[in-house]
Amino acid sequence: MNKGIPLIVSGPSGCGKDTLLRVLFEKYPQVKFSISAVTRPKRGSDTEDGKYRFVTREQFEQMLRDDELLEHNEYVGNYYGTPRQPVSDAVNNGSDIVLEIDVNGAAQIREKLPEAVSVFIMPPSMDSLRGRLTGRGTEASEVVEQRLAQAISEIGRAGEYDYIVINDDLQTAADEIYSILTAEKAKYKNNKNFINEVLNNA
Amino acid sequence: MNKGIPLIVSGPSGCGKDTLLRVLFEKYPQVKFSISAVTRPKRGSDTEDGKYRFVTREQFEQMLRDDELLEHNEYVGNYYGTPRQPVSDAVNNGSDIVLEIDVNGAAQIREKLPEAVSVFIMPPSMDSLRGRLTGRGTEASEVVEQRLAQAISEIGRAGEYDYIVINDDLQTAADEIYSILTAEKAKYKNNKNFINEVLNNA
Repeated sequence: MNKGIPLIVSGPSGCGKDTLLRVLFEKYPQVKFSISAVTRPKRGSDTEDGKYRFVTREQFEQMLRDDELLEHNEYVGNYYGTPRQPVSDAVNNGSDIVLEIDVNGAAQIREKLPEAVSVFIMPPSMDSLRGRLTGRGTEASEVVEQRLAQAISEIGRAGEYDYIVINDDLQTAADEIYSILTAEKAKYKNNKNFINEVLNNA
Repeated sequence: MNKGIPLIVSGPSGCGKDTLLRVLFEKYPQVKFSISAVTRPKRGSDTEDGKYRFVTREQFEQMLRDDELLEHNEYVGNYYGTPRQPVSDAVNNGSDIVLEIDVNGAAQIREKLPEAVSVFIMPPSMDSLRGRLTGRGTEASEVVEQRLAQAISEIGRAGEYDYIVINDDLQTAADEIYSILTAEKAKYKNNKNFINEVLNNA
């Protein structure tokens, strides 16, 4: 069986990444999503089958010792991490799996999983990014400025990624991500075994 | 404007490449086809707007001297070649263009056009290849054996290609080729300018 593709997806706050990924999973339900392990307390809107797996600090530290995480970080006193096992299970079962992660996490994953493919989601313009960051309208302007500066610094690292998807039209952008998965599976290195099998039957 | 992708497509006799490309151009009429220059006499079934541009031997040799060909070869006394200009025009106008060519021609094109992307079309199995080569039923068995040997030797060079598309289901295979074009345009290197423009507006 052909392996699936582990796909890192990053993008600055305000690029519309969450909505884009929702459209991708609706349109291509065969694509899996990597669930993060977190130690932060569960909020009202969180469910166990959602984006997070809630673990204790002790459990998380045990996972770290056992090298069970592809990346992790600590943010305002809580751990966040990407468990390795569900990703390798998906890939070995031939399923593509999306790892939604920031630029620093992406760099850690590339170290541990060099076969990962990475996509950086871009806003269609700086104006649209600014619009989306201020559009929420609930934040003080210095918070917006801080997010914008953060977004610009992340875009400055887009060169670490294999692919760039511009999130202008959601359907087009979702199709582009799926095309990237299709093309990656068509790469020669992922079809070497098939070719050798055909030649062995000659 | 983003550039188009020059796409080399090769595949052994019996892999169903011609039918596959017909489906591709029907489904994605925006993809262009590179017309070969040939010195062989026109046959009844040939038309000027078809796969060939008919030129004299003198014209062909002038094109060679002017380095106007991306590749060429001589076969039973006739020249065959790929004119460079229509390919660069298409690419510069943002159009993808397919160059249907054998493994030797593909190697020549990669030298002159390193940005070309290449796809090798594979039959789904050795049995299907054998079936297609004998299925025509009009050739003597030694001709079939010779074609089979030729096909096997070409498949042995599949590793020179970026991508492998298995021609099992025609629609799926055509969609895969189109996905490869989409993914190639999404590569970071083809979006560097866009990212710099966005950052310059920050």
